[in-house]
Amino acid sequence: MNTFGTLLRLTTFGESHGPAMGGVIDGMPPGLTINLDEVQSELSRRRPGQSPLTTSRNEPDHIEVLSGLYKGRTTGTPIGFIVRNADHRSQDYDALSHIMRPSHADYTYTLKYGIRDPRGGGRASARETLCRVAAGAFARQALRMAGINIVAYTSQVGNISIDTNYEKHDLSLIETNAVRCPDTDAAHEMEALIKTMRTQGDSVGGIVTCIIKGCPAGIGEPIYGKFSAALAAAMMSINAAKGFEIGDGFALVSARGSEANDCFVHGEDGKIHTRTNHSGGILGGITNGEDIVMRIAFKPVPTILKEQPTVNDAGEEVVFAATGRHDPCVVPRAVPVVEAMAALCTLDYLLINNATQKIFF
Amino acid sequence: MNTFGTLLRLTTFGESHGPAMGGVIDGMPPGLTINLDEVQSELSRRRPGQSPLTTSRNEPDHIEVLSGLYKGRTTGTPIGFIVRNADHRSQDYDALSHIMRPSHADYTYTLKYGIRDPRGGGRASARETLCRVAAGAFARQALRMAGINIVAYTSQVGNISIDTNYEKHDLSLIETNAVRCPDTDAAHEMEALIKTMRTQGDSVGGIVTCIIKGCPAGIGEPIYGKFSAALAAAMMSINAAKGFEIGDGFALVSARGSEANDCFVHGEDGKIHTRTNHSGGILGGITNGEDIVMRIAFKPVPTILKEQPTVNDAGEEVVFAATGRHDPCVVPRAVPVVEAMAALCTLDYLLINNATQKIFF
Amino acid sequence: MNTFGTLLRLTTFGESHGPAMGGVIDGMPPGLTINLDEVQSELSRRRPGQSPLTTSRNEPDHIEVLSGLYKGRTTGTPIGFIVRNADHRSQDYDALSHIMRPSHADYTYTLKYGIRDPRGGGRASARETLCRVAAGAFARQALRMAGINIVAYTSQVGNISIDTNYEKHDLSLIETNAVRCPDTDAAHEMEALIKTMRTQGDSVGGIVTCIIKGCPAGIGEPIYGKFSAALAAAMMSINAAKGFEIGDGFALVSARGSEANDCFVHGEDGKIHTRTNHSGGILGGITNGEDIVMRIAFKPVPTILKEQPTVNDAGEEVVFAATGRHDPCVVPRAVPVVEAMAALCTLDYLLINNATQKIFF
Amino acid sequence: MNTFGTLLRLTTFGESHGPAMGGVIDGMPPGLTINLDEVQSELSRRRPGQSPLTTSRNEPDHIEVLSGLYKGRTTGTPIGFIVRNADHRSQDYDALSHIMRPSHADYTYTLKYGIRDPRGGGRASARETLCRVAAGAFARQALRMAGINIVAYTSQVGNISIDTNYEKHDLSLIETNAVRCPDTDAAHEMEALIKTMRTQGDSVGGIVTCIIKGCPAGIGEPIYGKFSAALAAAMMSINAAKGFEIGDGFALVSARGSEANDCFVHGEDGKIHTRTNHSGGILGGITNGEDIVMRIAFKPVPTILKEQPTVNDAGEEVVFAATGRHDPCVVPRAVPVVEAMAALCTLDYLLINNATQKIFF
Repeated sequence: MNTFGTLLRLTTFGESHGPAMGGVIDGMPPGLTINLDEVQSELSRRRPGQSPLTTSRNEPDHIEVLSGLYKGRTTGTPIGFIVRNADHRSQDYDALSHIMRPSHADYTYTLKYGIRDPRGGGRASARETLCRVAAGAFARQALRMAGINIVAYTSQVGNISIDTNYEKHDLSLIETNAVRCPDTDAAHEMEALIKTMRTQGDSVGGIVTCIIKGCPAGIGEPIYGKFSAALAAAMMSINAAKGFEIGDGFALVSARGSEANDCFVHGEDGKIHTRTNHSGGILGGITNGEDIVMRIAFKPVPTILKEQPTVNDAGEEVVFAATGRHDPCVVPRAVPVVEAMAALCTLDYLLINNATQKIFF
Repeated sequence: MNTFGTLLRLTTFGESHGPAMGGVIDGMPPGLTINLDEVQSELSRRRPGQSPLTTSRNEPDHIEVLSGLYKGRTTGTPIGFIVRNADHRSQDYDALSHIMRPSHADYTYTLKYGIRDPRGGGRASARETLCRVAAGAFARQALRMAGINIVAYTSQVGNISIDTNYEKHDLSLIETNAVRCPDTDAAHEMEALIKTMRTQGDSVGGIVTCIIKGCPAGIGEPIYGKFSAALAAAMMSINAAKGFEIGDGFALVSARGSEANDCFVHGEDGKIHTRTNHSGGILGGITNGEDIVMRIAFKPVPTILKEQPTVNDAGEEVVFAATGRHDPCVVPRAVPVVEAMAALCTLDYLLINNATQKIFF
Repeated sequence: MNTFGTLLRLTTFGESHGPAMGGVIDGMPPGLTINLDEVQSELSRRRPGQSPLTTSRNEPDHIEVLSGLYKGRTTGTPIGFIVRNADHRSQDYDALSHIMRPSHADYTYTLKYGIRDPRGGGRASARETLCRVAAGAFARQALRMAGINIVAYTSQVGNISIDTNYEKHDLSLIETNAVRCPDTDAAHEMEALIKTMRTQGDSVGGIVTCIIKGCPAGIGEPIYGKFSAALAAAMMSINAAKGFEIGDGFALVSARGSEANDCFVHGEDGKIHTRTNHSGGILGGITNGEDIVMRIAFKPVPTILKEQPTVNDAGEEVVFAATGRHDPCVVPRAVPVVEAMAALCTLDYLLINNATQKIFF
Repeated sequence: MNTFGTLLRLTTFGESHGPAMGGVIDGMPPGLTINLDEVQSELSRRRPGQSPLTTSRNEPDHIEVLSGLYKGRTTGTPIGFIVRNADHRSQDYDALSHIMRPSHADYTYTLKYGIRDPRGGGRASARETLCRVAAGAFARQALRMAGINIVAYTSQVGNISIDTNYEKHDLSLIETNAVRCPDTDAAHEMEALIKTMRTQGDSVGGIVTCIIKGCPAGIGEPIYGKFSAALAAAMMSINAAKGFEIGDGFALVSARGSEANDCFVHGEDGKIHTRTNHSGGILGGITNGEDIVMRIAFKPVPTILKEQPTVNDAGEEVVFAATGRHDPCVVPRAVPVVEAMAALCTLDYLLINNATQKIFF
């Protein structure tokens, strides 16, 4: 299923080393002025080769928007876009075409489809996420007009972590370092660890924290369409994501109800707020107007330069070590992907909620 | 959205203190012999009042199946069912009807819908999960015929946890204690903690571990329909769920790629397997034939007998303490709900995968 | 697929001679006052035995609403309802259980599902339409609050037809006769024809015309979600429907563009209107504010008392003649079903359209 | 909603005079060898300028496939494609940008979206159907491997019609004339009528008949997913479609049950067949193995060179006559579009039906 969303729907296509990646954004509200430079700029945040920490694959990732805009404004019709793949190098992958790389999707795709496209991981490549980032950049601009802002950052790399309370950090510092961590000291340590991984030909995982600010109360559909469930699916659909938590998440397990409950209080702004936000802005699957806070765990990327025993597609045992480009920690580049998925999910649910509002009364 | 699933769809209805709960299971494959006693038995595993640890609300939770079966077999038509609510006691809730209970959904439902049904939390009540358990009991029987079995257990209550490796435990012991924990010693400690919570009028959270055994490789749709994403949404849709992880989950964050990768190996059964299973049976969103392992974090239930400051629907600050029935730890009763959601999700994805199989070749 | 709709979703279940029919209406806007007597009254319009023209099956068709209403108002949660089947008489069907009745669904259901529920046609029975009528009665009340009214009538039985221009008829006369035809003279002829069919043990088809008045412009999603396409699917999903047309429909085939075009004109009400309405209120799949007009063709019901050669499920040739109850023309009872499907479809599309309105500007 | 289908999904984008049209085909079964020349050839059947009867707009309509194929075979991943718009001529449309053309979608799109893209009708242009034809060409190749073939032809233009029984015609003659009518004599008359319309600056409607041969029994989902309802929606989503009928359709209205019923008979091939096929191959919404037959009515295209009174977007009354290119009868070019929609719909439902087959037994 290559479509994400209910009323706002992103459909994507493209293989890592095919001619192009692309997508269709359907359901975008009409009449919104879109800054395409900002879309391009988000793509650049995600693209490889942007810092010494990431893979050196050099892709300009230039977006061509083919429809849905007229004189800079959305028309309500679908926004089609493509991004050409400049750096095919498919010859790199010829040697791999019979090897089942450990913890990659080669094996499962081959079993599922009975056919293997060996070109750079094909559809399973994280390169697909550029389509998410492009679409997310449209959604973010729409959300901003509604007063909703989304920010994400790296909160852990390996065992180097920062305070889990985002209010303790100066979020304006996120983009000042290559790991996208608001704690500059920790950022230095994270960078050092990633460089060590590069030297060792190994990789390391991490955590991205994401905050949605300004989301009105009432967003989210109860029972099976809880906003927290939708966000979980959105984030767990990102390559290498292995865990998700909302609010205090797993830490709530060892709390008492009397500690974990967010009591309501009359706020200075005349609105009802909660004293604390252990719930991460969502109660019963519906937003309560507080900041929405979530954390996503990413495993170490499976491509490493070390030798690993595995099998080929004939079932023979072989030893495999990746060569060439190598991205020892995907987490800094996952930050804009997380933001994009949060934006798409939030705008979709905003539209769903709006559907039943203000018709009859 | 009160419907779960794509090809196998569960649609549920009902408020905690209305006349009945119910649901419709659509898309169940035809010709399957269903044991209704087993369905009833699963409902009894979930129902309150089954042990001294849970709420004393006494509901027989008798299921009436209204359609979709003929002479004990599924016909391919939708299975409608209802469960009458015997123990309304809606007078219990009159006093609550203007109070925004901390960390409950009263506030968000009222904001979203502009109308409040105060009867026992209305639709937001965890009583809705009985419909999931009923439907899950049908799905489990279907899955068993395909060689797929699902088991869940309590792996943590408060800060009492057991080894995260399920292979270290004797899963046949799960149902031998009231907390549904396969480690009998830990189970005693958990029970003691829950009883303490009851005495203190407080509550505590926990973790449920769930394993899907026998699931064939190739299940799951890449990109936005990853099986791991679908399971995350399924689990995060359960009341009080605040976190989800698959395989080693958050623990993978601090691992190296060389430690986290699951290398392929030629198994004794002539099939390809992985030496380790850090990925939890899913690579690139698709099952690889190993056991699927996940953990779900539940917050402490917000209903506690202690006094808490909050506001009423006029925005006035009040002090609130729940009275009457009180379930200090929802985790043991969440075990069959987790199994049910896993069963529904797995059968749905099995059908989706089957759609493109064996037509053309 | 037993669910109809996108944001307003009706899911139904039940076999003709099982314990009950029922359904779940999900997505109904909250806060609407619903008159349940009107729902019951719509069910009575559809039920058999209401006039000498229809089958004598005697069903009270009493609806029990199980959820989704609180003090007479919708709460935004799903509305579950059941209608018990009083008149099972399943022994009537024992003899039929091996016969493939001509032009019935026995054969196709058996081939599809590999199992046959012979009780009164099982799920394929037109009795399922009572669930549509019940749900439609909720939707109609919602639409009326938005100024939208739906009316349908019998415009043809056999070869007795009335003027296709609905403006030529006094629609207040529809319910004054048993065939639901606004032309009283034609109604008498139609009744006579139906009685002749009853005497002959034969059946006859007909056409239902349906008009949606007051629907605002802008409803309908272009391309694959055209409102005309959605209405077509809604109507063609009714038992025995074999044709659908919108506006002048098939008659437009032999018209010239210069005759068929609906020119725009400045109306006396200050709004833009069309001089004519050959398009039936829909242009490019989207409503233009004029009356929406459609016609649905129903085949003669296949149950007739005459002998017909057919086969049984062993493939043997047999002669079959129905016995017992017999409804020689389904069209009068299809009128409320058509209205119900129009109401469900219109409210659904009204909500979809509303989703992108009034958020950003 | 720019997506069509459930398991096989086509999502399209593009405006008539924007940079490109395009689409994504998701859910295509893997491993199928696709002949791209055939896809291109289908596009050429649809494109304008192919005969003196159609508009002279000259578009090469060259398809570029961007993903989803590897060495000529489908991989199971989405097939993205684009077709550049060569012949923009958007200056033609500047004069139109404020006029509400009679029976066009200008008015309804503008009302719905609050913004108008005047370039050639924008998204409402029938040029979108090239994406349907491209996708349909993939689906047809898949269906052919399953023994299913689809053919459509022009059966009426204006009041020139041919025998409604397709078995009376030699379908191999369809492509031998520019109107795509298997009756050569009638074809000459139709051509003459269309040329007259061109001379008069007027337009005329017509009917396309479509037959699906070789479709196995059991395809179609009962109740709301009837195959006949899905086909109706598919066809009514085509530009200018105003009516749909299956089997004998509207003609069944005046038939008796004893005439209309399709009695079952033991066929010479050892299978059960029906003696007649008034039902058009579908009973209770499910295919019975006979040929599926349907007819679609198209109105005369609204673009005519004659003067018509209408209004502009300021609500002022103006006189409008189209200039330049003019396609007096869309029906011959609608033939491949009808075939494409039939192919997409059939393959989708084949996959849906397959989902529950052969898993458990």
